[in-house]
Amino acid sequence: MTSIKVFGHKNPDTDAIGAAISYSYLQNQLGKDTEAVALGQAGEETLFALEHFGFDHPQVVESVEEGEEVMLVDHNERQQSIDGIENARILSVVDHHRIANFETSDPLYFRAEPLGCTSTIIYKLFQEHQVDIPKNIAGMMISAIISDTLLFKSPTCTEQDQEIAEKLAAIAEVDMEDYGLAMLKAGTNVDQFTEEEILEGDAKSFDMGGVPVRIGQVNVVDIDDVFKRKDALIQEMNRLSTENNYDLYLLIVTNILESSSRGLVVGSHLDSVAEAFSQNLDDHEIELEGVVSRKKQVVPPLTEKIAGE
Amino acid sequence: MTSIKVFGHKNPDTDAIGAAISYSYLQNQLGKDTEAVALGQAGEETLFALEHFGFDHPQVVESVEEGEEVMLVDHNERQQSIDGIENARILSVVDHHRIANFETSDPLYFRAEPLGCTSTIIYKLFQEHQVDIPKNIAGMMISAIISDTLLFKSPTCTEQDQEIAEKLAAIAEVDMEDYGLAMLKAGTNVDQFTEEEILEGDAKSFDMGGVPVRIGQVNVVDIDDVFKRKDALIQEMNRLSTENNYDLYLLIVTNILESSSRGLVVGSHLDSVAEAFSQNLDDHEIELEGVVSRKKQVVPPLTEKIAGE
Repeated sequence: MTSIKVFGHKNPDTDAIGAAISYSYLQNQLGKDTEAVALGQAGEETLFALEHFGFDHPQVVESVEEGEEVMLVDHNERQQSIDGIENARILSVVDHHRIANFETSDPLYFRAEPLGCTSTIIYKLFQEHQVDIPKNIAGMMISAIISDTLLFKSPTCTEQDQEIAEKLAAIAEVDMEDYGLAMLKAGTNVDQFTEEEILEGDAKSFDMGGVPVRIGQVNVVDIDDVFKRKDALIQEMNRLSTENNYDLYLLIVTNILESSSRGLVVGSHLDSVAEAFSQNLDDHEIELEGVVSRKKQVVPPLTEKIAGE
Repeated sequence: MTSIKVFGHKNPDTDAIGAAISYSYLQNQLGKDTEAVALGQAGEETLFALEHFGFDHPQVVESVEEGEEVMLVDHNERQQSIDGIENARILSVVDHHRIANFETSDPLYFRAEPLGCTSTIIYKLFQEHQVDIPKNIAGMMISAIISDTLLFKSPTCTEQDQEIAEKLAAIAEVDMEDYGLAMLKAGTNVDQFTEEEILEGDAKSFDMGGVPVRIGQVNVVDIDDVFKRKDALIQEMNRLSTENNYDLYLLIVTNILESSSRGLVVGSHLDSVAEAFSQNLDDHEIELEGVVSRKKQVVPPLTEKIAGE
């Protein structure tokens, strides 16, 4: 019998990978035979965490068989999941995003909470099942929380995320500030990336009232590291939009030290983007002061404007 | 400020009402201002439980305002919820059904588990939040579990339902067998019901591959109490189907003492019904031996046949 695959969303970030590893471990302790896999190659930040805590990169899988049993973490929307998910048998979902484009024919375990990180919910599941968290698993969980909350600076971060992060840091024996900044910085060296990697490394698709929108986000310590390549990026955004039928492509470039962003935008609905953030669009650029969270500060106002057009 | 409304599905059964009451109580203990309401008048079985444990029937509400905050129990599908739900702000969902036709724009608390009863999950929530369950609240919760599992005889009943029911029975100070049978019997006196009440008292709508299907269920101690009114029931099923555009109407008549059912069927797709249960259809009647669960023994095989046509 093959193991039950546990995975996060496409374009995996540290929570998608870390939550798959920790949830798979928990399920195995509870008697299931599961395996953490990834729907793509992880970025430098996640590789830093994996190496620090002694994990190999999970196997990358591209599709599931009809009827295959799977467990989803850190996502539920079909277009962010594995190819063929509509014919798989979803045993459980643990997530911290909105619920949409999700349907099953049978009851299942579905646990979503409006917290900053899936790994925070998984910590609670370890507690509820009274399963001890090993040091290296705690390490991946704390890495995921630091990543999703940008070291607790994101408005998506809740008290629970912070409290549980402190408990995990003690188990993992890491200094959150030192380790967290080192990990976040590992993901900010964009000079080594192609334009496509900058754009697509952490990009998600959204259906906003029928309008297909792609939103990428990249973390840096100097926003000019990205914007010095603006022309090449715009060209690549146009190419990706044509190829994948995106009406709008927005790249959020986030300075993790200043907790603020600048956006690069290509496509239609540009007026809606400007209105959503009450800012002028200047040659495809828009200032997003204080914005660090795609989920909380970008998707809701943009959905409201575009779906309401 | 108005209270946050907590409610179960339309055509409320004992779990829909009981879960709303117990979840509202839990939320209030946790500092929210909520109120249990109902999306319709409860049946005799539920009234028996409410009276036994000293509760008034929750206020019946028909719709919600745009942007109003609500909490859902024992359902998630839009067509089973309150009118206007698509414009309400859903704070949380606790459910034990499949997930479908559910979408939010923001993250929320969503807890579904494949257990026999929503109230079993709510018991776990009381434990997780370390909130004591008062005697009368425990009474509504045990009533809901007995109702949904037909005194633990339904195939939807899990070990967790049984274990938690025993704990609740101790708190509520009831003998499960004596109280349970009395409560279930209170809901079986169909002579006082109109045909519409028999059909619609516990009916739900399902979309099976584009085919609108209505499935009602009624509990009795003698199946002939219902089938002696067969002609009048068929007439009413035709009327309801025309009025509401159901392609197929199935009434499951369940003998709670024998844990078995007979179906009455009207509409199109009759061959699919016969095939789904490997039984001949004889003048609108079909034997459903050993069938007591709509969710587990009726909806899945019927969906497979009709959606696969």
